[in-house]
Amino acid sequence: MTVQVAVEAVPRNEAGIGAAIPALVARFGERVALGEALRRQHGATTNWLATQAPDAVVFAESTAEVAEIVKLCAASRVPVIPFGVGTSLEGHVNAPGGGVCIDLSRMNRIVAVHAEDLDCTVEAGVTRKQLNEYLRDQGLFFPIDPGADATLGGMAATRASGTNAVRYGTMRDNVVNLTAVMPDGTVIRTARRAKKSSAGYDLTRLLIGSEGTLGVITEVTLRLHGIPEAIAGGVCPFPTVEDACNATILTIQTGIPIARIELLDALQVKACNMHSKLGLEETPTLFVEFHGTEASVAEQSERFGEIAKECGGGDFAWATKPEDRSKLWQARHDVYWSVLSLRPGARPIATDVCVPISRLAECVHETRADIEATGLIAPIVGHVGDGNFHLSILVDMESAEEVERADAFVGRLNLRAIAMDGTCTGEHGVGQGKMKYLKVEHGPGLEVMKSIKRAIDPSNIMNPGKIFALD
Amino acid sequence: MTVQVAVEAVPRNEAGIGAAIPALVARFGERVALGEALRRQHGATTNWLATQAPDAVVFAESTAEVAEIVKLCAASRVPVIPFGVGTSLEGHVNAPGGGVCIDLSRMNRIVAVHAEDLDCTVEAGVTRKQLNEYLRDQGLFFPIDPGADATLGGMAATRASGTNAVRYGTMRDNVVNLTAVMPDGTVIRTARRAKKSSAGYDLTRLLIGSEGTLGVITEVTLRLHGIPEAIAGGVCPFPTVEDACNATILTIQTGIPIARIELLDALQVKACNMHSKLGLEETPTLFVEFHGTEASVAEQSERFGEIAKECGGGDFAWATKPEDRSKLWQARHDVYWSVLSLRPGARPIATDVCVPISRLAECVHETRADIEATGLIAPIVGHVGDGNFHLSILVDMESAEEVERADAFVGRLNLRAIAMDGTCTGEHGVGQGKMKYLKVEHGPGLEVMKSIKRAIDPSNIMNPGKIFALD
Repeated sequence: MTVQVAVEAVPRNEAGIGAAIPALVARFGERVALGEALRRQHGATTNWLATQAPDAVVFAESTAEVAEIVKLCAASRVPVIPFGVGTSLEGHVNAPGGGVCIDLSRMNRIVAVHAEDLDCTVEAGVTRKQLNEYLRDQGLFFPIDPGADATLGGMAATRASGTNAVRYGTMRDNVVNLTAVMPDGTVIRTARRAKKSSAGYDLTRLLIGSEGTLGVITEVTLRLHGIPEAIAGGVCPFPTVEDACNATILTIQTGIPIARIELLDALQVKACNMHSKLGLEETPTLFVEFHGTEASVAEQSERFGEIAKECGGGDFAWATKPEDRSKLWQARHDVYWSVLSLRPGARPIATDVCVPISRLAECVHETRADIEATGLIAPIVGHVGDGNFHLSILVDMESAEEVERADAFVGRLNLRAIAMDGTCTGEHGVGQGKMKYLKVEHGPGLEVMKSIKRAIDPSNIMNPGKIFALD
Repeated sequence: MTVQVAVEAVPRNEAGIGAAIPALVARFGERVALGEALRRQHGATTNWLATQAPDAVVFAESTAEVAEIVKLCAASRVPVIPFGVGTSLEGHVNAPGGGVCIDLSRMNRIVAVHAEDLDCTVEAGVTRKQLNEYLRDQGLFFPIDPGADATLGGMAATRASGTNAVRYGTMRDNVVNLTAVMPDGTVIRTARRAKKSSAGYDLTRLLIGSEGTLGVITEVTLRLHGIPEAIAGGVCPFPTVEDACNATILTIQTGIPIARIELLDALQVKACNMHSKLGLEETPTLFVEFHGTEASVAEQSERFGEIAKECGGGDFAWATKPEDRSKLWQARHDVYWSVLSLRPGARPIATDVCVPISRLAECVHETRADIEATGLIAPIVGHVGDGNFHLSILVDMESAEEVERADAFVGRLNLRAIAMDGTCTGEHGVGQGKMKYLKVEHGPGLEVMKSIKRAIDPSNIMNPGKIFALD
């Protein structure tokens, strides 16, 4: 039997759920799914948390419908759990107290593209790949790329980022405004479409990263960028992880506007070689990419090459053809799957610490030593330009002892990052999995967060049991 | 007699103030100033709002002292008004219900510079010029430049930006974390020092732009940038404001990473010529600046030159020598003073709308027509790369009729910008002056802001009578 990792309990409001569901069925008919398989799929996680299915899944098709559903749930104090495509890693879509999952995947219209303003408005269920395909003809793109083809609403809700945040920022930096349904069913738009504003509290940023606990995001206005005239990239091997980290620090400090700089440790390179047939030297390696004009990309590449050499880097392998570049980055994005080849049958558990870049080498080094001492298999891949790195711990979920050992290791890793003035989550979010680290990370700030939650959602119906427990 | 523009009243808690001030004097002695001149200076505004002096000014020297002062005020429900150097434009430092002003200007220590991480931590009273002088030897700078030598705490509190936000973003984008004293005296740090995080609600962004209504910012950790290897800049005249706006739109769209792009209309150029002895052609003019490597700056300048020409721009005048560049940007920063030469004795009233850049030419055009119809003198200067422009309306404050006429004009301007999906304030903040526009701008979102305010500051002691009135 699969071992289960404990999560915060949420009391179940049986009477409320019993009242809300028939009302939803009466209003939305076949768009309310009650079958177990579909409900379980909506409460499944891609980590080691147990599935907690909602009582019903409603497929909403507009902001107005989401408002109706939320009002109906609010009337009976029934939990509301927003769902995009379910790529979250920390149990964000689980329903620990049951309730109603609102599936937003049918809200996938691109509402408007304002090319002159470099922004667009999309419904929350549009995925990043869908958007970029739509934009390509206009020479525009949306840069945030967490790997998975997540929905833009979900990416906003978890403050997602990914490989090119080092250049373009995270969802925090690339959302102009949001439309959200609040816990009483009120629809708000958090800001207007001006590039900047000093008009009151930043509700946009408050909702970004709130993981559905304050409202349901139904539309997002995003900042766009012109597709770069030139893109160059490649891979560079290093003798040690420290050397690769030092090259990264120097690159950032020098002001090279690098678009991507990803570290793979030797074990991760081995996994990628096996899974994606890359043929790379199995040593710590940086995957890099430069965006700009032809001249600027050439200059950036040359400067990076000098820095890499200075830090002990080996021969730089350029991926000049787009298809070679795609193959490299596809391999990077397939890291989650690639690691399975290192230990078939194990489940990869993703960690997500982020530290100031000056502490990165030290944090990776201590973590590697801990991995070895703990006897785990856990390749490393990192958005090193931001100080953010992931382990994929390959856990035998049938072994209670191993799950416990891995869980203790994750705890040490998170506390190590926090002690280095870093965070337990750079981009995956808190969900259920990281709640226990927030008190250490935020101290009294956590109480301020809770007071905001209580003020906006006094009945605690919005995605309860996520981020923090309310007393 | 000077005409007064009405602001929201705040009831005065006479008994509380009577209790708090002797307690403050007992604790802080001579650091509590009670003299009228100094108190009035701390409640003065640089706009047309009447001075509303606090009952006492306390010069705090540490976060712990600020916490003591806030606790003491909270015990008697006495208003607390944070003060940096008093450069705000919308009555942010006024004390409509009296109370205690906390002067943070003595908290001017640079706590730490982490060059490897490109960040630094400063006390709230450090000004941007002080910081940049300190950083220069390390090859680093802090880019946000609102013109005035404001404190970094004040700039965070109003979500300030300025001339180079088009390249580097605003205070929203350049603060890593804050230390703040909350209304009950609790000290929080809003985030850790990692470049990004998904660990819960974004308290950093909540406090940025909260104008002292949620807490007193006492320390700020800022993102730094390397001083560019090369800087180039100059001025380019255009036949019309529309042509200059079109050149701006194309520049941004093409992806030229322009560091500054400022529009001055013909009247503003005239004022600058008189005040700063520039000798420019009196026609709409763009002031621009490029940052980068030598090669990249040359390429950016060339591309911009082509765009300007295409849009009808005249001969570009390069300021190649640093002293010529300084003179130009000093003239830009002295706009506030320069306009006085157009109508000696009048008071310049600054407006601050910001619209999507696609609507900029239209908004400026309609506004110019309105100025003419209203018979006001009001030169225009704008951070046009962000769609943000200011008028300096030269108002005879002795004429009630003229004040009323100007106030009505400002109302039309703000509503025009909001109707174009813009904001009544791009960077100055709401303070007392723009409260009446927020309901139109935010709709039901304003109630969400109020609920946050009530939750965090239930006694409404933190800078009451700013941003919104509580019912």
